[in-house]
Amino acid sequence: MSQSAEDGTRVVRIGAEQRRREEALTQRVLDAFAGAESPRLRQLMTALVRHLHAFAREVRLTEAEWDAAIRFLTDTGHITTGKRQEFVLLSDVLGLSMQTITINNEARGDATEATVFGPFFVEDAPLIGNGDDMSFGAKGTPLWVEGRIRDTDGNPVGGARIDAWECDADGRYDVQYPDDRTACRARLFSDDGGNYRFWALMPVPYPIPGDGPVGRLLQAAGRSPMRAAHLHLMVSAPGHRALVTHVFDANDDYVARDSVFGVKESLVRTFEDFPPGTPAPDGRTLDRDWSKVRFDIVLAPPDDPPDPDAAVEIAAEPPA
Amino acid sequence: MSQSAEDGTRVVRIGAEQRRREEALTQRVLDAFAGAESPRLRQLMTALVRHLHAFAREVRLTEAEWDAAIRFLTDTGHITTGKRQEFVLLSDVLGLSMQTITINNEARGDATEATVFGPFFVEDAPLIGNGDDMSFGAKGTPLWVEGRIRDTDGNPVGGARIDAWECDADGRYDVQYPDDRTACRARLFSDDGGNYRFWALMPVPYPIPGDGPVGRLLQAAGRSPMRAAHLHLMVSAPGHRALVTHVFDANDDYVARDSVFGVKESLVRTFEDFPPGTPAPDGRTLDRDWSKVRFDIVLAPPDDPPDPDAAVEIAAEPPA
Repeated sequence: MSQSAEDGTRVVRIGAEQRRREEALTQRVLDAFAGAESPRLRQLMTALVRHLHAFAREVRLTEAEWDAAIRFLTDTGHITTGKRQEFVLLSDVLGLSMQTITINNEARGDATEATVFGPFFVEDAPLIGNGDDMSFGAKGTPLWVEGRIRDTDGNPVGGARIDAWECDADGRYDVQYPDDRTACRARLFSDDGGNYRFWALMPVPYPIPGDGPVGRLLQAAGRSPMRAAHLHLMVSAPGHRALVTHVFDANDDYVARDSVFGVKESLVRTFEDFPPGTPAPDGRTLDRDWSKVRFDIVLAPPDDPPDPDAAVEIAAEPPA
Repeated sequence: MSQSAEDGTRVVRIGAEQRRREEALTQRVLDAFAGAESPRLRQLMTALVRHLHAFAREVRLTEAEWDAAIRFLTDTGHITTGKRQEFVLLSDVLGLSMQTITINNEARGDATEATVFGPFFVEDAPLIGNGDDMSFGAKGTPLWVEGRIRDTDGNPVGGARIDAWECDADGRYDVQYPDDRTACRARLFSDDGGNYRFWALMPVPYPIPGDGPVGRLLQAAGRSPMRAAHLHLMVSAPGHRALVTHVFDANDDYVARDSVFGVKESLVRTFEDFPPGTPAPDGRTLDRDWSKVRFDIVLAPPDDPPDPDAAVEIAAEPPA
């Protein structure tokens, strides 16, 4: 039974028999998954069922809304191809991708925080040396990127593999170009002191694909599809946890409302701008504006790989 | 940080900084949906985000599991066509369809409980009179179905429209036949005393489609794909809440483990079996086995249609 409150809210009163029916149904579904052979599958499915049913009961999901959800998922499936992953986009805008990354990159000392991997990484990027240019002629303002890689004990990490990639000044990655050009991506290694440096381009904000169901959801929710300007970095070295992260530009308005929640305060840096003629850190003199960012990176110790069939138990808080 | 308990359970210890990061992320996503214009969309999305994030955090969802979930949804989308709805099937086997129906068909006095609609209803079923046969020559044991329709105050409901449909003895609905035959479905009306009666066929258990992602999920979970044997009934009459329900056979093993959780104890009846030569309720003598079931139906008073933009608030328990 329902009544309307004065502010237009629908007030629902749930009787004892109705509550009993809803709870009994959830329990029957939980019981049905109790026979799964893998303890982990059992845990995943029962937790999913508990939350899904709690969601539907709490919001009093209508049949029209259920229909709309089925249509939304169907549209999301039908727009998804080998080249476009709308389910990943959905997970991104719900913050689930970022939450999964946060869960799997646990805080360890002052280790650099991880963020989303994104769909634009390419395995065989060109190898460059320190100080080289990864823009490969793409359009944009030159950006000098430098930093030092160390572990959580303060020891420099030499020979760390760094993959860097980003969009050009038009907000496009090379894989989105109509031709096969490689641009704005490279692999390099830190030197013996753990230092790295290369030329890139100033990153710019760009929208995630807005012409599908996820774009329509963002629009209905009054949310921007823009990703905050960022440079992707993936850093790996033997004996350390691999890091997938971004560095963000403090002067970009979108750092406060990145559409996929990839921004962590600890990853935001001030990019310094220089006029033409100012000598660059590598001694060159550019006849145009250029910028510079320093991004020091701290690698965490490695994690034990989890047993895929083991259920998880969260330990009680240690006594304070 | 994680360690392994003796029973193989992975024990996870979540530090204060890690907890802060996870909670802060969820809050940022909730804040992003706070600008939705429709109060209802805001409520749906924030509740969904809360439960989705709580699920991922509670089970410590791994990146491999997230990948598997994306692949599962992608496969589900790609197998879904105008003729096959794998997302509905997924909702069914998670009990979400049944929970949505339960929520939207609130307990009212002794009103007959609702159950799933299913994919096999057809709008223009043949009109038959009381006592006529809806099997139209399909294979199976004749079943006499009779009952009385009344409201929750005990008044008979004459002129109620009854749609009935079911599978044949092979577990197939007519829409699954290779030709255009209509069978095992009809529309009729209750008489002035609220009574109805017709010939149908003994329903049999049948599997839901098992060759897609949902079938693979059931298999991994050790669950049966079988639906308990049932006859579909949809009953509507002006001034009453429309009812979509099934009647189930008490002698069918699957009533205890219907794959879509459609069985409610209150919908299970004993089907009586008779040998050839026993006079049927309509005076006919059949030269073969036949069965009989009585299913009285109680219609609830109508609900107010909910305002699609109004958020819902659950009223506090009334004082006991």
